[in-house]
Amino acid sequence: MAHSLAIEEFEALTRAFSGFGVDEKSIVTVLSKWHPEQRKSFRKSCPQFFKEDDRFFERWEDYHINILEREFARFKKATILCTLHPSERDARLAYEVIHKGQPSGILIEIACTRSSEELLGARRAYHSLFNHSIEEDVAYHASGANRSLLVALVSSYRYEGTWVNAEIARSEAKTLGKAIKEASKKKLIENEDVVRILSTRSKLQLKVTFDEYEEMFGEAIDKDLEDELSLQETVQCLSSPPKYFSKTLDMALKGGVSESTKEALTRVIVTRADIDMKEIKEEYQKVYGVPLAFKIEEATCGNYRDFLLALAGRSN
Amino acid sequence: MAHSLAIEEFEALTRAFSGFGVDEKSIVTVLSKWHPEQRKSFRKSCPQFFKEDDRFFERWEDYHINILEREFARFKKATILCTLHPSERDARLAYEVIHKGQPSGILIEIACTRSSEELLGARRAYHSLFNHSIEEDVAYHASGANRSLLVALVSSYRYEGTWVNAEIARSEAKTLGKAIKEASKKKLIENEDVVRILSTRSKLQLKVTFDEYEEMFGEAIDKDLEDELSLQETVQCLSSPPKYFSKTLDMALKGGVSESTKEALTRVIVTRADIDMKEIKEEYQKVYGVPLAFKIEEATCGNYRDFLLALAGRSN
Repeated sequence: MAHSLAIEEFEALTRAFSGFGVDEKSIVTVLSKWHPEQRKSFRKSCPQFFKEDDRFFERWEDYHINILEREFARFKKATILCTLHPSERDARLAYEVIHKGQPSGILIEIACTRSSEELLGARRAYHSLFNHSIEEDVAYHASGANRSLLVALVSSYRYEGTWVNAEIARSEAKTLGKAIKEASKKKLIENEDVVRILSTRSKLQLKVTFDEYEEMFGEAIDKDLEDELSLQETVQCLSSPPKYFSKTLDMALKGGVSESTKEALTRVIVTRADIDMKEIKEEYQKVYGVPLAFKIEEATCGNYRDFLLALAGRSN
Repeated sequence: MAHSLAIEEFEALTRAFSGFGVDEKSIVTVLSKWHPEQRKSFRKSCPQFFKEDDRFFERWEDYHINILEREFARFKKATILCTLHPSERDARLAYEVIHKGQPSGILIEIACTRSSEELLGARRAYHSLFNHSIEEDVAYHASGANRSLLVALVSSYRYEGTWVNAEIARSEAKTLGKAIKEASKKKLIENEDVVRILSTRSKLQLKVTFDEYEEMFGEAIDKDLEDELSLQETVQCLSSPPKYFSKTLDMALKGGVSESTKEALTRVIVTRADIDMKEIKEEYQKVYGVPLAFKIEEATCGNYRDFLLALAGRSN
């Protein structure tokens, strides 16, 4: 009986291993006292732990260990991302997503929510880290319809002054509307005018264009782009980063469908902590009716939780 | 008889107004002495002066004055280009060519013969001078098949380190060869792979690729691109600026077919004076068998000539 599991220890560990991150303190106090048989009995008694997707793991133990490693890695990754220079951070995020599959979301996020100089900083850092240019790797590795959009977005160096041409805004709002209306005939994301407008115009010019669009067609352009995720994200990142980030955080906190959705939690909190976290929190509260910090606290554990809350709280 | 033209004065003025630029000294000494009748008799006796293309001028006098203004303007333009910061110079050259018709040659020259940082400098200067980005204006104003090439070239920020991937070079040399061979079926300049390779790869990587190409197909790639002027210029600007500039100077010095060909004389001498003028002169001597300075001296006049020779001579 000496080596069986106490119910409160079992519960403490359940909490310690649930959600994002791990509760290091509980692990230290509970796990450290256990004997080998107790550890074995814990493993055997709760195969449901960390059970999310067992397609990839034949043996439950491998799966278990893999998840443990991943949850431990969250705090490490947050720490690393936080200490990197923003340019290097963006370069590494871009490299990872370009080389681990079909790049899109994170690249759009980096290309469209950063200032021209920040994006350029990332392109510079990418050179020295990876001996290639971002656009070179995107053009080479991306395939499919959104390649030309992605290449154009990461190559952009947008004008950031206050000059806006209202006439061009009107005419391009019309161009966008026409393209969206005819999208069923031809893939919208391959439309040269749509790519040109979204990838080269200044953010201020685009804001006026999107306003014109809404006035002309009675609906916000991002609503009309619901079938074209990459274009919708592009529009949201360009016109309203806080809205985009608050939506991204919500998807991550809901547990998401994929690991990349969940990883957004670390990425967004770390990259926006010193930029627009205040606006993101306001937007989150407005749309989801609950403070972002509550949701983070609910969904995360341990050092990872403390770290995210501290970062997110800095803007208060 | 007092007011008729002396034969040597006539000859001096013929020389003063011939070729590129004007011989200011002869003008000062000859023209200043003339009476109104002499000036009139000079105009009437030599309608062939400055006669190059009379399609655009109904009245000979207008034509005459226009050419005079243009030739006087050469020295002024050389002076201005020379005093501008290189970034502002490139930005202004780009703006001019984008807004005065079909941009191509000069944009390719600026995008492909400058270093990544120099091109970026031009993009920055363009923002503050013209309240737009270069790629924005190119994408908006350029039409036709070479738009996507031009936009990609001016947006590039190429890796400039020493890393080269020989395997990619081989495979992309093959891709280029295949595209060129099949060019009759589809416009080569619209081929996505061709645009991608030429606009994103580092210059060193492209050098290896072009060498591979020559080895595979038995002919230098720029020879194989003789029917695709924009692509040929791109390849030459990327792989061997001195060769490209020496050819451009030769065309300008021959008088060219258009004013833009002739304007290259000022542009190339001024922009390359402190960069690779030594290599350009060596290349010129090698290919055309005569020193560049002799040709310039022969083709130009006055302060304009002295200025170009001084700039071109600085590299000795």
